[in-house]
Order: sequence, then C-alpha cells, then structure tokens
Amino acid sequence: MQTPAASARHDPERVVAVVHALAARFGNRLVTARAVREQHANTTTWIANQPPDAVVFPQATDDVQEIVRICAAHRVPVIPFGVGTSLEGHVNAPLGGVSIDFRDMNRVLAVHAEDLDCVVEPGITRKALNEHLRDSGLFFPIDPGADATLGGMAATRASGTNAVRYGTMKDNVLALEVVLANGELMTTSRRAKKTAAGYDLTRLMVGAEGTLGVITSLTLKLSGIPEAIAAGVCPFPSVEACCNAAILTIQSGIPVARIELLDALQIKASNAYSKLTLPEVPMLFLEFHGSDASVAEQSKRFGEIAGELGGGPFDWAIKVEDRSRLWQARHDAYWAGRSLRPGAQAIPTDVCVPISRLAECVAATQADIAENHLVAPIIGHVGDGNFHLTLLVDLADADETKRAQALCERLVERAIAMDGTCTGEHGVGQGKMKYLAAELGEPALLAMRAIKQALDPQGIMNPGKIVA
Amino acid sequence: MQTPAASARHDPERVVAVVHALAARFGNRLVTARAVREQHANTTTWIANQPPDAVVFPQATDDVQEIVRICAAHRVPVIPFGVGTSLEGHVNAPLGGVSIDFRDMNRVLAVHAEDLDCVVEPGITRKALNEHLRDSGLFFPIDPGADATLGGMAATRASGTNAVRYGTMKDNVLALEVVLANGELMTTSRRAKKTAAGYDLTRLMVGAEGTLGVITSLTLKLSGIPEAIAAGVCPFPSVEACCNAAILTIQSGIPVARIELLDALQIKASNAYSKLTLPEVPMLFLEFHGSDASVAEQSKRFGEIAGELGGGPFDWAIKVEDRSRLWQARHDAYWAGRSLRPGAQAIPTDVCVPISRLAECVAATQADIAENHLVAPIIGHVGDGNFHLTLLVDLADADETKRAQALCERLVERAIAMDGTCTGEHGVGQGKMKYLAAELGEPALLAMRAIKQALDPQGIMNPGKIVA
Repeated sequence: MQTPAASARHDPERVVAVVHALAARFGNRLVTARAVREQHANTTTWIANQPPDAVVFPQATDDVQEIVRICAAHRVPVIPFGVGTSLEGHVNAPLGGVSIDFRDMNRVLAVHAEDLDCVVEPGITRKALNEHLRDSGLFFPIDPGADATLGGMAATRASGTNAVRYGTMKDNVLALEVVLANGELMTTSRRAKKTAAGYDLTRLMVGAEGTLGVITSLTLKLSGIPEAIAAGVCPFPSVEACCNAAILTIQSGIPVARIELLDALQIKASNAYSKLTLPEVPMLFLEFHGSDASVAEQSKRFGEIAGELGGGPFDWAIKVEDRSRLWQARHDAYWAGRSLRPGAQAIPTDVCVPISRLAECVAATQADIAENHLVAPIIGHVGDGNFHLTLLVDLADADETKRAQALCERLVERAIAMDGTCTGEHGVGQGKMKYLAAELGEPALLAMRAIKQALDPQGIMNPGKIVA
Repeated sequence: MQTPAASARHDPERVVAVVHALAARFGNRLVTARAVREQHANTTTWIANQPPDAVVFPQATDDVQEIVRICAAHRVPVIPFGVGTSLEGHVNAPLGGVSIDFRDMNRVLAVHAEDLDCVVEPGITRKALNEHLRDSGLFFPIDPGADATLGGMAATRASGTNAVRYGTMKDNVLALEVVLANGELMTTSRRAKKTAAGYDLTRLMVGAEGTLGVITSLTLKLSGIPEAIAAGVCPFPSVEACCNAAILTIQSGIPVARIELLDALQIKASNAYSKLTLPEVPMLFLEFHGSDASVAEQSKRFGEIAGELGGGPFDWAIKVEDRSRLWQARHDAYWAGRSLRPGAQAIPTDVCVPISRLAECVAATQADIAENHLVAPIIGHVGDGNFHLTLLVDLADADETKRAQALCERLVERAIAMDGTCTGEHGVGQGKMKYLAAELGEPALLAMRAIKQALDPQGIMNPGKIVA
C-alpha cells in the first residue's frame, strides 16, 4: 500500500496551463483575484489560510467533469467548496489547485413527496432547502448550526442538534452522484430506501471530505414535519447532572429530537448576546417531536428524570415564537461565545464519547480549562455523547496559545481513552489528521490510504486532508 | 483499474500446502470430509453447491489471522461461514479454498447497557444474542427471519421485518474488527455513537460479503425493549390497497415497527402450515412499539388509514401469545410457501423500489407470475418498498425452470426501471452480480473493483462474489 498524493505538487507551470484551459471554457466564471482565493480557503479557525490558485463556478455536472478532467490532465488539485463553514481546514489548498465553488449549483432537482426524498445540487444550503420544502409538509432534519451547503454537509458527515433522533448525514443521504478523479460520473446508489447491492459507495463518499471525488448531486431522505413540537429549557445543579439526565432520557427510550447542553459560561454568553434571562447554571435545551399526546408524554417523562437529578423546573413552551427564540439562541451560541472575549480568536473543536463516559469527560475538560486559565464555553449534543469547546484565545499571547493547543490535544486523548473519537461531526480535514492513527490504528489508516490511492492515483482530490 | 482475483485459481498443490499447514495448527478443528464441505457451500437455492476444499473452526481472532495468513501465503481463497442461511451463493467456493466456520466464536464479549451497545463475536445468532440480552431490558432489533449469525448479517447488510423502524445492519453496527487479506486486524471505528473521523470503514465492510476482509468482532447498537407492543393483522381487497396503506402509514409519520405484506397465496399457505384461519385475501401484519398510549394511538391511526382504503377490520392484540403466534407464522412463511408444492425447489428472491412504485411493481409481478403459470407467493417488508417472491419450481421441468429464470430477470429489470435495486436485503453473492452494472453503471462497478483490488490484491477474500 503506497502513500498517495506523491505526484500532487505545486508546480507553477501546470497551474498556468490549467488556468488557461479553464479560462477558455469558463470565461469570467474563473477567478484568480487574491481576495476571492483567500475567501475560498480556511477562514474559520486558527488553521492558516492556504488559498487555491483559482476559483471556478460550475453551473452543471458536466462543468465539474470538465474541471476535474482539465486538472487531472495537469495533475493539479481540485478542492470542492460550499460556503466555507467547515472547521478543520477542509477547503484549504496546501498544494495549490482549483477551488470548485458550488454557488451556482444550488437547485432542487426533484421532490418525491410520496417517497419522502428529494434530489438536490450540492450548493443548496439547508435553510434554502427547508424553505423550498415548507409547503410539502416535509423537512430535511440535519442541522449543524451553520447554514452549510448540503454538499459540504455530506462531504464532512455533518450532524448537529437533531442527530439524536434523525441521525447524521450518513443516515440521511440515499444516493450521490460523484465526479471521480478521472472525470467519470459515478452513481453510488438508486432511490430505493434500502439496498444490499454491493459495496456501500454512498457511505464511503459521505465523510470523505472530497478526497475521493466531488459530489454533484444528492438524493436525501426527508422527514414529515411533526404534528406537534414541544421545546423547553431545564436548569441543573451541575454539568454532570445535565449529562446524566441525557443518559437517562436516551436509556428510557424517550425519542427526544434535540437535547443540548450549554454550560454556565455559555449561558452567561447567550444571555448577553441573545437577550435571554436564564439562570447562569448548566442547562439542557430540549425539543420533542410527535403527536400532541406524544410530545406531552415525552415532556412529562423528561421532567420526572430532571427532577430526580435535582434539575428543573422544566418549562416546555410549544408556541412557535418561543421555540424559535430558544433555538436561535442555541444556534447563535458560537457568536455569543465569541462575544465573551472580543478580539480573541475562536477555536471550535469537538469530540464524541460513549454516553456513559460523557459526564466524566465534560467534567474533566472543564477542570482542565480552569487549571489552564483558558476561556472556553462548552455546548454539546449530549444525546449522542458529542460536545464542543469554543476556545477563545489571544493568539498574540504565545503562552496562552500553547496552553490552548495542549488542551485540545488532551481533549482528544481523553476522548480516545474513553473509547471515543477525535471528532463527532466536524471532520478530520487538516486539523485532526494527526489523531487518526491513535484512534483507529495503523491497519485502518493503511486501508484508508489504499482506498485513496485506488480511487485517486494522482492524489489530486482535495489532497492533504484525512490521509497524507 | 484492474480486475482482481486473477491470481486466485484452484491449484491442488497450493491447497495441499494450506491443508497441511492448517492441520498442523488446528488439528481436528480442520475438516476435509466431503459431507461437511458440502454443508458449507450453498444449500438454500438453485445456485449450484460449490464446496470449499476444507473447513476450519477458529476459536479466537488470532486463529482467524493465522488462517488468513496461511491462505494468503499460498494464494488460496478464504470464505467466511456463519450458519449458511444466505440466499445468493455467498458461501460457495467457486475457486475452492478454506471455509472459516464461526461456530465456536459465538460469545457476547461485553454488554454496555448504559451506552445501549454490545460487543459480540461473529458466530452468535440473533436469537442467542437476544436471549442473552433478555434481562437487560435491551434487544437487538434486526430480524431477517432466519436465525442467522450476526457476522453473516453484517456481511450481507441484512435487514428484515423491523427495518422500517430500526434500520438495517448498516444502521446498527457501530464498529467492526476485520481481518484483512494480509492477516492484519483492522478496527473500523470506536464505540462513540457517531464519528466524523475519516472514511466510513464500518459501512464499507457491512455488505461487503467477506470480499474485503473477515469480520471477527462486532460492536452493535441495542434498543430498549418497548414498554408496550401492539400487533395485528389487517385484510385488504387487493395487494395495491395493502401497498397504499403502507405508503400512507409511512407518509403519516406513524413510527410503525413492522408492516408486512402477505399476498392471498401466501395467506393460504400460512393458514395450512401455521394452522391459522385468516381470510385468504391480501393482508398486512403490523406491529407498533412505544408507550401504552403511543401504541394505542398508532394502532388507531393505522386503522383509520386501512378503513379509507377499504381494508379492515384491523384487530390488534397485545397478548404476548397472540403476537408470538402471528410472527411465528410470518417467520414460517418461507416454509409455508414451500409446502404449497412439496418436492419443488424454493427460490427466494428480493427487490426493493421507492415506496411510491411499490403497488405497481407488486401488481405487475403478480400478473407476470400468473401469465407464466408459475407458483410464487409474495411477502414484503412494504414499509421499505422491499418484497420477496418464493418461486416454487420443478427443476426437472426444463421449460418451467426457464420461465422462472426469465421471471426473475424481469423482476429485477422492473425494479431497476422504477429506480429500485436488484436486492433490498439478500445481497449480491454470485446470484446478482450480473445486475450491478445495469443498476449502478460502469463507474460504480469500476470503483468497487478498484477498492477490491486495493484491499485484496491477491483476490483471496471470498472471490467470485459482488465483483468478478
């Protein structure tokens, strides 16, 4: 098994040839201005901005095939780009190359309401899709917070607040069309709800971060908009109590749709930013979906669990405006967190552990933050054992930066030691490559490299991500 | 991209060397008796029995690694074997080789009740696992009918009656340990409920039918045994009405746990075989899981849907013995079908289509059966758009056999033309390899071959299945 990408080097002559060929085909849909190139590299975290050599805006699948063929002919990298909300440097171009921006491929190609599915282009965002679906009584449930594109969400195996009930992107993509490294268009599956026909190419491409091919269309499972939705917040005496309430809720089989932890620091930030008046203690934000009777029953049972753990009172409001305000505040948690320390760089990171270890992992991480005099509110999709830190770091302070980096390393080590993963939903990108061997072992890494080499022998598909 | 398996040829000298080496290590756990070898090849369908050269019974993972290493050194195939209930020739040895029978690797290694997961060896059957779990309040929901092994169920991406609510094996395997073609042991994932850490090796191995590696341990998601279960049968005036009731049930968001179609011929067979007294018309068998209030509500709402479509009355019984009798009859449907025509060979086959096309696909298939004077009861996991024929064929009648084969071809063509798949849950094995190109296209097939070549360059892992 060989290391791929050996041939993908930044060679100015090849790049010139590619830009020339792309310009001939795409005219002013090919852009090489520095500002545009920089916007198409990592802008969200402390990973350095590594701009591509050019950005191209395809309008159809055969445009994408042509871009990949031109790049392949010159062994120049291609990097798919949605809206750039990824957090681990996925859109960076460490070896240069061409960023494929799917801005203009954002159509809904079909809605099959009877089959509870739809077919979309990769550039549509989740909010735009749900807006389109609104009158159908259906929705696409995966909600990573940011208004990311569906192509990017599939590529990074995104999940978010609803995953505890509706699963992640791996569970909600039925089929993909993918342009392979040779420019051929591959269909991974058909539209049947299940299949046992060969290797699961759909799931192989979901989470591959563009390193095996470029997604040009997605067939997505949809869900019925629930008849009734109840949402509410519940205070707890400690983060451990929050986690234990989440554990008991899951174990009791309550089909909770969202169960989100915000620690006391995050609540303080959200109170200030979102004009809430919540008590500044650890909180769970919850949502229940079902019939009227079912959401009432779920809410009641959760309230009992909370009470047993010293939490509560649990207020559940089903008024749409109350619910929207609550979840807007949850979605703005990142921005609220940032406002705790204006001027600091926000460094979001995530891990995921078996739920039985969650309370211990969060508590140990809070202690680690305090011991190292760092500022890092915690939020978590605790029904899945997944939580996030938003480290707020003054990058001008070398010592603080070093402490923050070391904390991130320990966080991952702690999660892996608990049989967890270095990332529950952000993906590997550039930022977490170094942890894969510790998490999965050398044979898994060699298998990933062999697959990469098999499908991308020239190493041109988003090189420098996941596998070296 | 090259064709793999070119080097895996049946060479008597290599086989002698392998048998010698295995006998030295495994003693009487290596068997070469013809009768045993024949039992370890396909015995369930009209696909010819192609016995392996030897059968070995490992007791631990390192036994499996040693078997694979010995076979790899001599380029002799290895074929994993559970209990032999697969239906598409998965356990056949067309190029000879060594069958690895997991009979003695059937332990439950861990139950993590708090995390709703367990770790098992591949040779445990689903009934044995659920027996083991009984006192924990948890169960493993995937139920393909046969008491298959979990290793075989993962390898073939099995699903069955509960899949409409609980998903298929792809949704219920958290992680695998897999012995690769070089004898190395790969861990595909850790025990966190979700992960975004690299390629989804778990899903790549689920459904790979042993062609990419041999599963030696599985981490499985478990579900809580529902507080209440309601089950019942509902007659309908036509198969179309049954399918439409299933479609409306799914579209209404009723979280039905099982929704199974039995056509009039199957009901006739089941009445005779299982001593039931059901009216001999198309029927749905249903099961609802939840709280007392929830199953009552689900049952009521389904009854309303059935009534609107001319079906009913819908009797739902929650007495355990009634429910058991009902599902025993459903599970015995295959044997009941066979008893319609003693002496005939039973040929089970399955396809899956988008649910909006299900009624049309089933009706066209029934017409095709009638026009060709064949006997073939239909049963279906209709909530997923998946249905089965059990063709009862007199193989001594060449013309009938030809008509039956042609019907199977048309069934697959019909499903694929409706954007469906040649197999919803039985897998590809030997029997359905010829349909993959029509279903997925050449680029997908080439990608599968490239992955096969990358992970099994000598072509020794269950060769002659899925990809040639």
